[in-house]
Amino acid sequence: MDLHILDHRLRVTCISKSGLEHYTHPLIKLIFLRNRTRCKFFSLTETPENYTVVLDEEGFKELQLSEHLQVEGSTWLPLNVVSNGNASSSSQAVGVTKIAKSVIAPLAEQHVSVFMLSTYQTDFILVREKDLSVVVETLVEEFSIFREEGGESVPVHSQAACNGLQRNGREVPHATVHPVLIPENQFCVMSLDPDTLPAIATTLIDVLFYSNSPKEGASVDEDIECIKFFSFSLIDGYVSLVMDTEAQRQFPADLLFTSSSGELWRMVRIGGQPLGFDECGIVAQISQPLADSDISAYYISTFSFDHALVPEEDIVSVTEMLQAQRKDMSS
Amino acid sequence: MDLHILDHRLRVTCISKSGLEHYTHPLIKLIFLRNRTRCKFFSLTETPENYTVVLDEEGFKELQLSEHLQVEGSTWLPLNVVSNGNASSSSQAVGVTKIAKSVIAPLAEQHVSVFMLSTYQTDFILVREKDLSVVVETLVEEFSIFREEGGESVPVHSQAACNGLQRNGREVPHATVHPVLIPENQFCVMSLDPDTLPAIATTLIDVLFYSNSPKEGASVDEDIECIKFFSFSLIDGYVSLVMDTEAQRQFPADLLFTSSSGELWRMVRIGGQPLGFDECGIVAQISQPLADSDISAYYISTFSFDHALVPEEDIVSVTEMLQAQRKDMSS
Repeated sequence: MDLHILDHRLRVTCISKSGLEHYTHPLIKLIFLRNRTRCKFFSLTETPENYTVVLDEEGFKELQLSEHLQVEGSTWLPLNVVSNGNASSSSQAVGVTKIAKSVIAPLAEQHVSVFMLSTYQTDFILVREKDLSVVVETLVEEFSIFREEGGESVPVHSQAACNGLQRNGREVPHATVHPVLIPENQFCVMSLDPDTLPAIATTLIDVLFYSNSPKEGASVDEDIECIKFFSFSLIDGYVSLVMDTEAQRQFPADLLFTSSSGELWRMVRIGGQPLGFDECGIVAQISQPLADSDISAYYISTFSFDHALVPEEDIVSVTEMLQAQRKDMSS
Repeated sequence: MDLHILDHRLRVTCISKSGLEHYTHPLIKLIFLRNRTRCKFFSLTETPENYTVVLDEEGFKELQLSEHLQVEGSTWLPLNVVSNGNASSSSQAVGVTKIAKSVIAPLAEQHVSVFMLSTYQTDFILVREKDLSVVVETLVEEFSIFREEGGESVPVHSQAACNGLQRNGREVPHATVHPVLIPENQFCVMSLDPDTLPAIATTLIDVLFYSNSPKEGASVDEDIECIKFFSFSLIDGYVSLVMDTEAQRQFPADLLFTSSSGELWRMVRIGGQPLGFDECGIVAQISQPLADSDISAYYISTFSFDHALVPEEDIVSVTEMLQAQRKDMSS
């Protein structure tokens, strides 16, 4: 398999709930007005805590610093695994499960933090730019590694990228088992033709920017078992949307499409306290057992928590698996 | 003819050019998300100086006070003239011309300031609430006056409305003749089915909120003879748009409609210095000669200047008329 280091230099930021309206102007530009910005990598995820915005440096320039915006200090690079047809794996699973053993686990062992961003189209593995040489060194045995530069794919050789590299020799500390939350809502992972984005503009704006203000006449009947989670990304011209079925009903049914009709996902939110960016092995902890059981999973990291999405029919076994894991670790 | 005092209590406000992005959140809500607001009267007009926002008290609540927002101190009420079929006038002209002699001139004589807002559908004459009794007293001979209250039209009798009224006995001062500017661009006055507003959302958002930031790749080739002027209103569910032909080209041609296809208007901007809100007779000064010549005109007041729109084919005679008026006044 090939591993591509994509040509985007990313910032991971977070807008507070109350601060979102101050960022409406740049965010709407980044989402809807492609000809007004050079941003090519944009992702916005709403969780109950805040809004996580991951975007390239061109996009980041649009965000004015303020007390409403938190910015993680590093530059992150997105990695992308491309099956080149002769993959020996017999796995039918998709998403993070497919790369659990080949990418996630080795990086965790090397104490490299990853920030995952699954989309409808693919799974981006974000690593800190400063960790790149370790990443290459770690993955070069398993993958042909290419660095995208100005539309070209340039092969990366371990020596070239890792001049003077010292492998992280640290012992991986005994991983913390984070509490998980399994909300009741069902999610769908969707896409749409980017040319039809204008057709859902007012709905998307409503959901993203105004869903916290009460609708006139609507009764407040929030299901406390459900979680607020909505993710939009526009990356290299591809749109991906992750939303629950309630939000989905607000969109015109004929424009959004999902990989197999009616496919629904349940969420496992990882972390009782905000996770931070320095702990390693969080993705590995959940993706490993999923890979063992060949269960597909999307995985979306946010500023505060991580979120895995697993097929609805597998949620019971995933829950049992996580409970067993918990027991093992604490015993 | 009937004169209706409409059931809206309006504020006239102004957002600075650099402050607009701070108001993107409430303005997009007011323009596109009708089910999230009780605002029923909203108008936004961009001029080279600033953005004039006229809106009812429900809408005004959405605007946070800041150094970017100026608010005129009064509450304004919109008046509306309704032909009830037996109008004796043989005039074919539309817009402010139709009401120049019956409304505009008498109010000017009574020293009542008016703020005009022509739309595709009708012409609103805004008067200060505190002037209402003078307005009624002044117009009651010419009109059957009704006050709209909760969907009902209640007849207004001069005595009832004007308890203790003292007619403004002041002499109307010799009117100042304001310089006028006649820019080169051609304007159209359009409407669209409010249900299709979502279909033009991204274009409208682009034009309203991002037209001052350069487009990627676009050359800066601004015609200094043209004026930036764009007006959007959403009043009682009716949409009206006034824009020049250059802006019009950005919108899908099949959604916007105009009263007679291809009808184009030229602008007369009144005022060399910002006009303020206390001078009277400004609208009268231009609408009277237009009425004498039976030339149609839309009229849009903004925070800083007034703007009349006259048919393209009449712009030469209007220009001559204004020059003659100028000579008369100065001689």
